[in-house]
Amino acid sequence: MATLAITGGQLLRPDGTISRADVLVDQDEGTILELGDDLAGTGETILDASNALVTPGFVNGHSHVAMTLLRGHADDKPLDTWLQEDIWPAEGELTPEDIRAGAELGLLEMIKSGTTAFADMYFEVPEIAAAVDTAGLRARLGHGVVTVAADEAAAREDAQTSIDVARELDGAADGRISTAFMPHSLTTVGEEYLDEFVPKAREIGVPIHYHANETTDEVAPIVEERGVRPLAYAAEKGMLEPEDFVAHGVHVDESEIELLAEAGTGVIHCPGSNMKLASGMAPVQRLLDAGVTVGLGTDGAASNNDLSLLDEARDAAMVGKLETGDASAVPAEAVAEFLTHGTADAIGLDTGRLEPGAAADLAVIDLDAPHLTPPHDLVSHLAYAAAAADVKHTICDGQVLMRDREVQTLDERAVCDRASERAAALVDRVAE
Amino acid sequence: MATLAITGGQLLRPDGTISRADVLVDQDEGTILELGDDLAGTGETILDASNALVTPGFVNGHSHVAMTLLRGHADDKPLDTWLQEDIWPAEGELTPEDIRAGAELGLLEMIKSGTTAFADMYFEVPEIAAAVDTAGLRARLGHGVVTVAADEAAAREDAQTSIDVARELDGAADGRISTAFMPHSLTTVGEEYLDEFVPKAREIGVPIHYHANETTDEVAPIVEERGVRPLAYAAEKGMLEPEDFVAHGVHVDESEIELLAEAGTGVIHCPGSNMKLASGMAPVQRLLDAGVTVGLGTDGAASNNDLSLLDEARDAAMVGKLETGDASAVPAEAVAEFLTHGTADAIGLDTGRLEPGAAADLAVIDLDAPHLTPPHDLVSHLAYAAAAADVKHTICDGQVLMRDREVQTLDERAVCDRASERAAALVDRVAE
Ligand SMILES: [Zn+2]
Ligand SMILES: [Zn+2]
Repeated sequence: MATLAITGGQLLRPDGTISRADVLVDQDEGTILELGDDLAGTGETILDASNALVTPGFVNGHSHVAMTLLRGHADDKPLDTWLQEDIWPAEGELTPEDIRAGAELGLLEMIKSGTTAFADMYFEVPEIAAAVDTAGLRARLGHGVVTVAADEAAAREDAQTSIDVARELDGAADGRISTAFMPHSLTTVGEEYLDEFVPKAREIGVPIHYHANETTDEVAPIVEERGVRPLAYAAEKGMLEPEDFVAHGVHVDESEIELLAEAGTGVIHCPGSNMKLASGMAPVQRLLDAGVTVGLGTDGAASNNDLSLLDEARDAAMVGKLETGDASAVPAEAVAEFLTHGTADAIGLDTGRLEPGAAADLAVIDLDAPHLTPPHDLVSHLAYAAAAADVKHTICDGQVLMRDREVQTLDERAVCDRASERAAALVDRVAE
Repeated sequence: MATLAITGGQLLRPDGTISRADVLVDQDEGTILELGDDLAGTGETILDASNALVTPGFVNGHSHVAMTLLRGHADDKPLDTWLQEDIWPAEGELTPEDIRAGAELGLLEMIKSGTTAFADMYFEVPEIAAAVDTAGLRARLGHGVVTVAADEAAAREDAQTSIDVARELDGAADGRISTAFMPHSLTTVGEEYLDEFVPKAREIGVPIHYHANETTDEVAPIVEERGVRPLAYAAEKGMLEPEDFVAHGVHVDESEIELLAEAGTGVIHCPGSNMKLASGMAPVQRLLDAGVTVGLGTDGAASNNDLSLLDEARDAAMVGKLETGDASAVPAEAVAEFLTHGTADAIGLDTGRLEPGAAADLAVIDLDAPHLTPPHDLVSHLAYAAAAADVKHTICDGQVLMRDREVQTLDERAVCDRASERAAALVDRVAE
């Protein structure tokens, strides 16, 4: 049995408390074997965590990882203009090789910011799965379905692709890859396709993930046409089950919060994207008060513009206070859960808890920095002050993905160069 | 003449464009001598800026730098409770040595995040000035006056201290230190003291800096008691001159925006603090549209919780969009100005422009990182994706304060250790 010991650190426990212990990992099983006072002698590989905080690896509940290729390509535009003039034309030109290059760049950034698991909606999903396999992360992947602009044959093919991808890739990368059926949203996928394909998702036993209630423009047409709120419509369509999770949930009313709580459906809060696209502020404290499982997501890098969950955590605490006018809302402790088991539970991945028997998915955060001094409260530092560059080591499934900021599974130079080359060529093709 | 050449970089110009050039600095004068294609041969000292963005050093328009000692001491509390139960009792126990230690920690963090100039309101200002002298930054310092809880003698002494400090420290640290008269706010300083001491500030020729319109609780009493908005009251008291600058300006109405624009008084936007304390969102785009000079500030580390202006820049762009509901509001270009000459102009320091003859206050940002790839738009990366740890070199007044992330003017280990020791002892004293 190959073993790894992480020594000298302070540990963020599942109950949100922090205390001193070493961590012993079974690398063959990818699980945490033991927590204890002095386990340095028992590990074949040793990672130093002295003056560091050891947390579960961070979990990104909603992303479009290949969109890193479009980071900074078009900012500061209204959502409609941004999508129609910049994002969709660029996405229309993306080749499978581009998507692989963008995914590798995004995964590299995730590893460097302590993320070990994520949920992702995009197309050319086998390319993304191959990148995940190489990079070593854990993921729930799916093919995003959009039927609004397609004829019936193309629409059905798109939806079938999402089902096929979900069936074929489930369990890939030694079980690190799970999948979901991913209709893009309730307004971009026709009702007839939901009626036909939601049951197919249930047949193959995968959850359903979609964008919901992101903007008022997305809510109004459903209310007008159907006389019910979007999440009531989703429930009618069988898309509000305990294993399902929606992204955004910005414009949800009390009846929808109640529906989410009763259903056990998770909500992935994406505060950075919601601010940058001026979508609004999700009622996160009310979701928590109602008992809804809340997770955190970066959305794509084109609307964020980075994939660091530590930035997103600070955003979540900040927006939670603005939205309620109450400085005690969405406190650091809630944010620490969003970073770890909160999001893992929402997207249905068995990770996010630092305890014996759990998945050995870990991030080690160096506390030896002026901005993390003095050490009054390490949970506060995690929520408000720690940044991507403070992550020293990243471990997923028992394997060391980054050691002393050196990524072990991807060639950083090559990944960045390839992404820059492909991004430049893409922008040239779009301009033609 | 000692010279410094910064070679290989992309330069952020005063007009917001970015283009390639080397920078030659006269270290004796502390100014930029020349920008050109190949100046490596002319510098006695060389700083490498290849694959890096060279910007004016960032300017922090409103801080309480010694409050780093209270970082994470008390989070997620309503403003009143936070001040009365946590911050004021702790501040009451601060010794001059504590303030020196906290200031050094804050300055260390500023240097490591590319900040070269700041405006600061606190007490025991000579300790802060000594720290600034050692650390090598540029600053406008002042003693914060609070008269509400004091008897007349103590109140007058406090206000006189602010005048004395402003007179005595102006021009200290080889001219790197300027000063201001700093009444804490319009509700915490009695009218009779404003009437007596504002003219004294004008006599000695220093600007006036104060908190204004931060919360609705601060606006309502003035409107009730005087029948005018707070900034109209400030104008009556002679505190709205072109050289003056106010912090926050969250709850300003159209009449006050007009007053600010006409007066030429700067507003320092502190979005991180305003979110964390649930104060609200300043109408930054409307301020800009009216022609008000807007700067950026971190406020104290206890309400932020870090002093990185790059975080604050992203917050400003994000909050600008939320506040207006318009994703094109407060774009990256505006944020780049806030980081540099916008804030410098607001607080009246002659820095923030990268051009021959200007102060050699510079930050060099390493672009060789996954989260700054691909290089579609470097202004976008500056506003949305760059982080403190990307700052490679920091130069102020021609002197290298940080080289390859090694701070040259402060002993990082000693500063952090001293701050942690003093912070722990402080919390113990408060608890007694
Ligand atoms: Zn999305
Ligand atoms: Zn302040």
